[in-house]
This record gives sequence, C-alpha cells and structure tokens, in this order.
Amino acid sequence: MSRYFEYRPGDGYEAWLQYRRTDQGTKLKQYAPYCHIAAVIQDEVMRTAVNELSQGLEAITGHLVDVAETLGESSGILLGIFGASQAIDEAIHADVAGSVRTEGYAIQFDGRTEQIAIGAADSAGLLYGVFHLLRIMAAGGDVKSLNRVENPVNSLRMINQWDNMDGSVERGYAGSSIFYHDNRVAKEYQRIQDYARLLASCGINAIAINNVNVHRVESRLLTDFLPDVTKLAAIFRQYAIKLYLSINYASPMELGGLATADPQNPSVREWWREAAAKVYEAIPDFGGFLVKADSEHRPGPFTYGRDHADGANMLAEAVKPYGGVVIWRCFVYNCKQDWRDRSTDRARAAYDHFRPLDGRFLDNVILQIKNGPIDFQVREPVSPLIGAMPHTNQMIEFQIAQEYTGQQRHVCYLVPQWKEVLDFDTYLQEEGTPVKRIVDGTVHGNPCNGFAAVSNIGSDANWTGHLLAQANLFGYGRLAWNPELSAEEIAKEWIRLTFGSREPLFQTIYDILMNSWEIYESYTTPLGVGFMVNPDHHYGPNVEGYEYSPWGTYHYADNHGVGVDRTTATGTGYTSQYADANKQRYESLATCPDELLLFFHHVPYTHKLHSGKTVIQHIYDTHFEGAERAGQLLAVWERMREQLDEQAYRQVADRLEEQAEHAKEWRDRINTYFYRRSGIPDEQGRTIY
Amino acid sequence: MSRYFEYRPGDGYEAWLQYRRTDQGTKLKQYAPYCHIAAVIQDEVMRTAVNELSQGLEAITGHLVDVAETLGESSGILLGIFGASQAIDEAIHADVAGSVRTEGYAIQFDGRTEQIAIGAADSAGLLYGVFHLLRIMAAGGDVKSLNRVENPVNSLRMINQWDNMDGSVERGYAGSSIFYHDNRVAKEYQRIQDYARLLASCGINAIAINNVNVHRVESRLLTDFLPDVTKLAAIFRQYAIKLYLSINYASPMELGGLATADPQNPSVREWWREAAAKVYEAIPDFGGFLVKADSEHRPGPFTYGRDHADGANMLAEAVKPYGGVVIWRCFVYNCKQDWRDRSTDRARAAYDHFRPLDGRFLDNVILQIKNGPIDFQVREPVSPLIGAMPHTNQMIEFQIAQEYTGQQRHVCYLVPQWKEVLDFDTYLQEEGTPVKRIVDGTVHGNPCNGFAAVSNIGSDANWTGHLLAQANLFGYGRLAWNPELSAEEIAKEWIRLTFGSREPLFQTIYDILMNSWEIYESYTTPLGVGFMVNPDHHYGPNVEGYEYSPWGTYHYADNHGVGVDRTTATGTGYTSQYADANKQRYESLATCPDELLLFFHHVPYTHKLHSGKTVIQHIYDTHFEGAERAGQLLAVWERMREQLDEQAYRQVADRLEEQAEHAKEWRDRINTYFYRRSGIPDEQGRTIY
Repeated sequence: MSRYFEYRPGDGYEAWLQYRRTDQGTKLKQYAPYCHIAAVIQDEVMRTAVNELSQGLEAITGHLVDVAETLGESSGILLGIFGASQAIDEAIHADVAGSVRTEGYAIQFDGRTEQIAIGAADSAGLLYGVFHLLRIMAAGGDVKSLNRVENPVNSLRMINQWDNMDGSVERGYAGSSIFYHDNRVAKEYQRIQDYARLLASCGINAIAINNVNVHRVESRLLTDFLPDVTKLAAIFRQYAIKLYLSINYASPMELGGLATADPQNPSVREWWREAAAKVYEAIPDFGGFLVKADSEHRPGPFTYGRDHADGANMLAEAVKPYGGVVIWRCFVYNCKQDWRDRSTDRARAAYDHFRPLDGRFLDNVILQIKNGPIDFQVREPVSPLIGAMPHTNQMIEFQIAQEYTGQQRHVCYLVPQWKEVLDFDTYLQEEGTPVKRIVDGTVHGNPCNGFAAVSNIGSDANWTGHLLAQANLFGYGRLAWNPELSAEEIAKEWIRLTFGSREPLFQTIYDILMNSWEIYESYTTPLGVGFMVNPDHHYGPNVEGYEYSPWGTYHYADNHGVGVDRTTATGTGYTSQYADANKQRYESLATCPDELLLFFHHVPYTHKLHSGKTVIQHIYDTHFEGAERAGQLLAVWERMREQLDEQAYRQVADRLEEQAEHAKEWRDRINTYFYRRSGIPDEQGRTIY
Repeated sequence: MSRYFEYRPGDGYEAWLQYRRTDQGTKLKQYAPYCHIAAVIQDEVMRTAVNELSQGLEAITGHLVDVAETLGESSGILLGIFGASQAIDEAIHADVAGSVRTEGYAIQFDGRTEQIAIGAADSAGLLYGVFHLLRIMAAGGDVKSLNRVENPVNSLRMINQWDNMDGSVERGYAGSSIFYHDNRVAKEYQRIQDYARLLASCGINAIAINNVNVHRVESRLLTDFLPDVTKLAAIFRQYAIKLYLSINYASPMELGGLATADPQNPSVREWWREAAAKVYEAIPDFGGFLVKADSEHRPGPFTYGRDHADGANMLAEAVKPYGGVVIWRCFVYNCKQDWRDRSTDRARAAYDHFRPLDGRFLDNVILQIKNGPIDFQVREPVSPLIGAMPHTNQMIEFQIAQEYTGQQRHVCYLVPQWKEVLDFDTYLQEEGTPVKRIVDGTVHGNPCNGFAAVSNIGSDANWTGHLLAQANLFGYGRLAWNPELSAEEIAKEWIRLTFGSREPLFQTIYDILMNSWEIYESYTTPLGVGFMVNPDHHYGPNVEGYEYSPWGTYHYADNHGVGVDRTTATGTGYTSQYADANKQRYESLATCPDELLLFFHHVPYTHKLHSGKTVIQHIYDTHFEGAERAGQLLAVWERMREQLDEQAYRQVADRLEEQAEHAKEWRDRINTYFYRRSGIPDEQGRTIY
C-alpha cells in the first residue's frame, strides 16, 4: 500500500489529531499487529495515555484494540514506568532507561517480538511517548526503526490564555473564550478537555487560564470561583498539564478589604499566604501565579515604593511550601511617554527595570521575558534582558496569537521567527551562547526555566480562526519540547497530520507556510521599524497610528529619513544592553543587518542597504512584491481545491482572499506614505498614490 | 440704583433664565410698577406666557405679581391676541397690529398709563413677547422706550436631537440623553419641560426628538412608543414647540413586516399613510418626519432604484392631509470611497445628488442642507446647494454640538461662524443674494424654510458640559429668529443674562467668546483643510487620521505641498457648483481667500498667502500663537475668580485648563507633522519636534 494518503480536516476541530483518512475503504494494515496494548495503569495520566493510544490505533487502523496487563508472546505495544513495570525493565536496557529524565521517554522496536516498548520515569513521559508513536503512525511512518530516547529540553512549556471572564479574549482572533462566558466559568468541559488533549499532544505541560490583565471579576478566581478552577485543574491534570492563575496584585485590597497591597506589610503577606493555602488545599498540584504588575496601568509594588523583587518574593514565599512558582512578567515600561521626548526608549525598559535586581529574586520566581524588547512585532531584535541576569530564573515569552502578524486573517507561520530568536547568539558567556541554552537553564544553571506563549485559540470550530494558524500552536509546543527541531520539520509534521502527504497539496501548503512570514513582513512594516498599525486593535496599516501616542513606539519619519537611533554613540544607548559583539554589530551601519536597520538607526531614504538597494527603493520593492506574493498564495490554494475537503478549502480560501486584498491596502498606504514623505519616485515607475 | 449687577450661575442649570441677583438685599424697584398682569387666558401657550411672565417678574423684582383679566387704571403689563382682546386692540394701533405676523408680537410702553402692552396674532407670539420683555428686565434694561414689532424671519426654527433610546447622544458632549434611557422614553418630564422653556425663550419652535440615525428600537417611536411621544409632544406644546420624529426609511419592513420599502410600492405607501394617520390621531399638531436616507449606511430609496424625490414625496403624501412636512437631509455622499481615487470629491456630493431633482419635490418637503459641503468643520465654504434649487423648499442645518470645534471641552462661540455663512453672498440672482435670504424663503418665494441645528445639550447639570457653550444654544435660537442680529449683540445679551454685566467680568467673557473661534481655528486645522482629527470620536489632532480612510476627507500632504485641488481647471470641478462670481473667486489663487486656500487648492508649502506669509510659516505661526492664546484664556479667567460663584468659576476653569493643554498637543502635532513633511524650519526657530 501507498504511504501517501490524505486527510480531510473539514471544520478543523480535530486539528492534528484527526487519525482519519480519505481512502475510507483501505485500512492501514501495516499497523494492525500493534493493536494489542499492555499496561498496568497506575494513575490517571497513564490511563489517558492508554486511552489515547487505544483510540488512536483504532482510528488509524480500523481494528479493534485490546488492552491487557501483559502482551505475552503477542506483537503489540508495551507501556510502563521504569522500576514499576517488570516488562518494561526487561524490554528497555537499564542504560537507556537511565538516560530518561522527568517527562522523557524511551521508545523502541524489538524485531524479534514485534513489540514496541515505551518506557518512562513517570506517567507524563508515557503520555508523550504515546503521542510520539501516534504522530508516526498517523503519518504512515516507519515504526520498525524506532529506537530513541526523548527528554524535554525545557522543564516549563507553558500556554498563557488571555481570556477574560466576560467571554472575550484579549488579542483573541478565533471567537470567544472556551473557558468563560457571562462572567462565569464555562461548563463546556468537553471542549476544554479537547484543548488539553491538543496541548499535551505537542508537549505543553502548563497553562495559565486567565488573562494577565486581571480585572475585578477574574481576581475572584482565587476565591469565590475556586471550585470551578479546581474542576478545570482536574481536566488538565488528566493530560499532565499544571494549572496556573494570573493574579491581580491588588487582590488583598479588592478581595481582602485591606487598605494596602504593600508587599512589606505583614497583613498583606498573611493574606497571600492564606490565599495560597486555600488554593493548594483545593488543587495540591497547582502550578503557581502569573503576574503582570506595574505594567500598562496594572497595580504593583511601585505604588508602595517597593520594587519587583519585593513584589515577586512576597508571592513566592506564599506558594513555596507547596512547590509553587511565581512567574513575573518583565513587560514593564512607561506607557504614558511624551512622544516629544526622544531620550526615553521603550526598548530599554525591561533591561533597565530588571537587570539591577539580579540575585534578589527567590529561587521559585521566574521572570517571563518577551522575545523582543518591544512587543511581538513581525521583526525585532532579541531582548537583551534574556541571559543578562545569571542569578535569576528566566523564561521566554512568545505570542502564538498573531496580534501584529495578521491576526489569523493573514497566514503567518511563526516558527521560523521563533527559531531565529532561539538560535540568536547572545555572546553573554562567549561565542555560542544562544538564547535557547539560556532559556533551558544550561548556560546559568538555573533550576526553573522554559517557554511561555500567548495562545491563539478560541471558540471557533477550528480553534484558531485561520486553519493554517493551527501550525503555530502545534509548532510552539514542539519547539518548547525541543528547540533543535527545525521550522521545516515541524511544518512537514503538521501538514502530514492535518492534510496528509499527498502531492502537490503537501508541497503547496509547505511553501505557503515557509514563505508566509517573509511575505507578511514584506508588505507590512519595513526593516524592523515596527508598528505602523491602527491603534488599539492593531489590525491594518496606519503609518502614523502611534507616532504621536504615549506608547513609546515611533518611527520618526520625516522628509529626509526614517528610523530610531538606538545607538550608544548618538542615540538612546539601547545597543549597550547587548554583549559587546552584538552591540558592535548593531551600533555600526556597516554591520547592522538590513532587516533591523530602522530599529537601530535613523537613516536617509537614500541610504544604501547591504542588498545594494536604497531604503526607499527597498520599501517600494518589498511592498509591491509582497502584495503580489500574497495574491499568489490565494492563486495556488485555489488550484488545490480538488484535493481538499470543501469546508477546509473554503475557510482557508476566504482568509487568503482577505489577505490578498488587505496586502494591497498595506502596499498602497505604506508606499504612498513614504513617497509623499520623501518625494522620491519608484525606480520602476509603478503606481503610488 | 445701579443698572450693573451680576448673576451667579452656580451649576448653570438655570442658564440664561436665572432672574437671580447677587445683591440679595436690594430689589429691582424700577420694575415693581409692572407687577400686575392682565390677560384673558385662551389656551395653554398663553397660560405658559402668563406664568413665565409672572414668575420672571417675581424673581426679578422680589415682589408678588397679581394676574387679572384687566389692569384698569393700574400700571402693569397687558397681554392679548389682536381681535380677541379689546384691551390690546385699544392699546396697540391697528396699523401696528397689522404688521404683526404669525408668531410675531408688538410690544410697547404707554407713558400715560405706565402700561406695557404685548399684542400678538397668536399665543406663541405672546410667549415670545414675554421672553423679550423678561430679557430686558433681567438685564436691568430700559422698558420705557419699548415700542417695536418683532416677527420671526424664519418660519421653522428647529432643533435636532441626536439622542438614541439607549441613552447615548450621538456627538453628545454633555452627558447622556435627557429624553431616553435603557431603551425607553425617560420619565424626567420636569427636565424635559425645563429644556422646552430654554428653547422657547430664545425662539425655537420645532424639535425632532430622536437621532437622524434611527436604529431598530427608535423606529418604534412611531408605533409602540407613540403614547410616550404624545406625552413629550404635550410638554413641548405648552411652549409652542412642535414635535417631529426622525424616521427609519426601512420601517415598513422592520415594523410592518413588508418585503420592501420601495416608495413606489402601494403597500409601502399605504403603510406610511396608516402610520401617519395614527401619529396625527395621537398628536394632531405633530410636525412631521425628519429623514436621513441613503446616507452613511442608512436605508433609502436607492435600494429600489428610486431617487430622493420619490422617497421624500411618498412620505410627504402621507403627512400632507394633516399639514405635516417631511424634512429630507442632503448629507448624502459615498462613505466607502477609495482614498486612492482623487476624482471623487465628497464636497460635490450633495449638489450632484440633489440639484437635478429641483422641482420634483412636493411642497411640504423641505431639504435640510448642512452649512458647508463637508461636515461642520471649523472652516468650510458655504454649501453651493443652498439656493441652487429655486423650486424646492430648503432649510439650513448648523451644528450647535461642537463635534469638530472642541466638543465642549474647548470654548468655541459659533455664532460668528454662522453669521459668516448667513451673510455669504451666493450671487445666485445677482449681487446681494445672501444665504439668509434664501433660507428665509424671500429669494425664491418658497413657502417652507428655516433653520435646523443639532443640539448641544445633555444630562449634565449645566446642559452643555462647557458652561460657555450655552451661548451657542442661545445664539442659535436668537439667530434663527433674526439673522440680522450680530454675533456681538447676541454674546452681550447672553453674558448679561448669565453672568450679569459687572466689569471686568463682562468684558472678559465677551472677549473670550468673540476670540474663541479664531483661537480654536488657529491651533487646529489650517487654511480650511479640515479634518486632521482622530477617527470616529473626532476629538484631538491626528493629521493622517482620515488620509487613507473611505470617508472622502483628505488633505494630500506630501513633501512638497498640501491641499485639495477643487478647481474646475485642474481639479475636481467643485468650484463650478457656485455662481460665477464665487466660482471665479475660489478658482484663482489670486482671489481665493487665505482661510479657504487649502480647501480649494493644492499648493506648495512655500506658496505666499495674501497675508504675505508662506503656507508653512502661517501654519507654524498660527499654531504657536493659537496655543499661547488658549493658555491666556485660562489666565484671564483665573483673574475673574473673585467675581464668580465658585462652582461656575471652577467648571469653566477646568475646561479652559484642558483646552490650554490640549491646544499644545494640537500645536506640536500639527507643526511636527508639517515640519517632518516639508523639512522647512520655522523662521523664528521655535521648538518643533
């Protein structure tokens, strides 16, 4: 039989866990021998693993699957915890078993017995091993060469839901919240469980279930709504996912009736200790608190003359007895800046605020740092704070939600962007100190570390609004598990699981994904300058949308040039936050990479890029080409119609059509703006208004 | 005793009808002889007139007032309808009486009898005569020289409430609606009656009580809510004000369940006839319908391939049997314009749409035309549609609500602007055909004519948010009554009634009002270019806020120049909509007035104005000076503190403080924008960012 088959994702609800095939008649006979599972179920996560494996196998093979305590001589799949399962200890060599760490697993095929063994140090590892095997089988892959150990590179692999209890999702582009509506916790437990399953299947092990902007009603998740939260924790627990809450720093006042939220005040500390005790009484494996404080009008320790370390440590002490952590966001800057003031630089803010506090945080505090210094733009340099606090736990924050990258109306596969960030060499110890090695804890030896990302899902049937945006959620999880995976591998894996591997569909979707970031960047903000979007909702072009705002995001375009001088020699000094090699590279026009030029320098429109083009001609060229390429995405998709389920075809086609139109709007507004500013015509004489 | 005294307006609720004095001990003895009123009350408006006079006199004099059927030999005030009151027919000569028309009055003092006689042809005229007398007395004026006839110049003197039934007011800057809340008609009848009284006191005789954008619930004012509307009509009727409703053109579908709203469809026509019949059954003196159709997404006859005449005439036929009118707004333009398309000119739209329909409208249809071709900007030319349809009733629409003129946060006395519009010579018949003579019906001899204006009031205690914005409501009414009144006279009258005439307060407020329009214009949009405001809410500077929008409001600023070429020779041809004298004046750079230059022409920044300055230097100079003068408004007000009631002082001071700050923001953003565009420095080297 052919190993090429196709899936029909239909409404997209099953995402990459469809296990469905188009050739309904043919069964995948190659996997039939493995329809026997042996496992001694020890806890609920292991039960989940066995259930997932059993249901997955049945869907893939069309055979009934039996589950027993042993396989005997039969072919099949053996699951077990090392040291607790004699069968697994016999199947997997002790040396191999010894290399499996928390949440990791060994998976191997024995040609003699025709048995596949999955062994792990804990039941979470078994669950991940099961999903590993199912990924292979669902894509029609080879199981007979299986022989490997997988350990997660990052201990925390977290999702942040920006869901509000009124049912809205901040920066949500896929419907409303699946967690809440009408200021109550939603009772659609099946949907939430299906989400947990999606997350676990790509390796996520932590979730904060409410928006980091915690308003009055959400504050009460910690108290009145705790029984509901407990129920949600139980759902995620089945999938080895720990639950966290975003908290309101002013809770002791708003909920506790205290006159202060000063972290040095004994009553405040006591209030938090009691609050934590109650949460852990209800949810003994509760993850901890996620905190946005003194940021964008949220309350925090600054009100009381305290600093972030004071604020975070108070909370950390409260959860410490239970093994909880406090995740403290570093997205702190002056959001009431005077646009006239060119000396204040928002890009500097996180480093300036937090770097001096290195060593002051307790060991169960983790600083959560956005990948770039501004805010999830299509192109930014890496945040210089990452790695700059050797004595402090840090984790990186990405945004799967496409706030500034097309809001799931435009296709933008973000894994290549994240890969660039993770591979960025900080030079903080020496050459070869990439972000991924800081984030996984190896560079500084910090005990807590990992990834967080803002989710892109909502109540839409396909979870992510744009069907192709599912690849970002999947890719984030896979990358958090192993940052060495390439964007290409992840894309291929996702396409195989979602659309199958039939050509030319497979290659078409692959090309769409792999080109999408570049295309989106090319018709939107050029050369790292950022923003140029409509205020508030951030969708669509508006070159001066933030130019006179208090938000610190300016481009200073005038009739002569554009860009922000962030050099140390003549600008805001932001470059000096980097290790010397990077500082020198960004500081000099001779070495600053083109794609970040306007982030670091204010240059004339006639400045020549390394590419040989002038800045103005680069703007024109990329915008004409980008809009044209966006139009081609639709055209190639339309040619795939025959190979696709109509519903899947239509939902993507509609979005690509909107993208193609909207890209023209970006093209014309950006080009017109810069033409009217510079007065320099396009060398090719194309239409600018 | 001194005729100079001062009022203390406090919260501002009494507005210009305070009749209160600071010198509480002293009574205004000069008017004591007139505290006897003789009148035979014939209807409710006359009762209102007598009550107003009686209460006003008591408040002014501190004396009790007696009302009888005759005065006998006593001094006092005599009220009567000509032909119905023997006393008044004796007191006022028949020749004088004969010159009094509908709603007019004669008022005269008889030195022999010491009696003041107010005679009218109807009770509304008596009410206006009473308010005339009270204006004089409240300001301490001379009654002994009274001997005049007053007739309203315009038959319709209307207010449009843009109130929605959810309680919001579209473009409302003074709190919420006093007419509605929670999708019901409000029961605060006293407040509504107090508003009716304010309106009648300055001559208003018509009101449309709901927003011209009629949504689902407001459509039902015509049906379900008719009993409530009837109650409101009764309140306004006491003050001789006719009530109108804004209607939803799609009502036959939305309320009547018909499949169409086609004006040629017999069922649709019948639906409107029945709807009108029911309204007139409940409210026999109902004014008629106000209609915004085929405008900014509102339904209208275009949907059915019909034109505005078809649409308006159908409604006109329905109200005709009852003496009702249909007021049809001409604010019709393409609000989905492509900003790239420079040939479409929103300024042309009203003329292009309506001019060809001249003669097609029934004689109880009135076209309501905004004063300018765009939308109530701080500076626009006069709409060329006004007077261009000799066979069609027309009325002019002003906006008392300061949508584009500071939103009642900035002081902007609009009467001088309206005066310029009214005095504008259209040359439509010959030199000396001003707008005011078209609007009052004399030029073309149209039977229906007048003024409409969008109200600026809301639930704020002082009605208008900014206490000084009361002058605009008062001034509008006074001007509608008599467009020959000067802005200066009206300002003085309003100040005397509201703040008294004590110096230096009187002169200070007078200077603030009379300079306010010029000051506001100077720091906002220059030379008639318009807009440059934040989208949607329209408050505050945003130079490119509408530049790439579908709304048709562009300035086309580039690195070379700015402005819209609306000439016939090289531009959109808008100038050809004017009579030749005006066309020539606007067409030529040599004669186009500076203040409208950028409305009619796209010129280089280096273009020399008639003032001798370049455009760019004019922009810089006016913005620096304007912001400085805005700051001085606050400074002079602060010096008046001792002369003012603290509450009145504080509410104005707060607004002036905001204005002073906000003017700097305007100054800096506009100057910075044009400096960055042009690269031309300020000759005086002042700070631009």
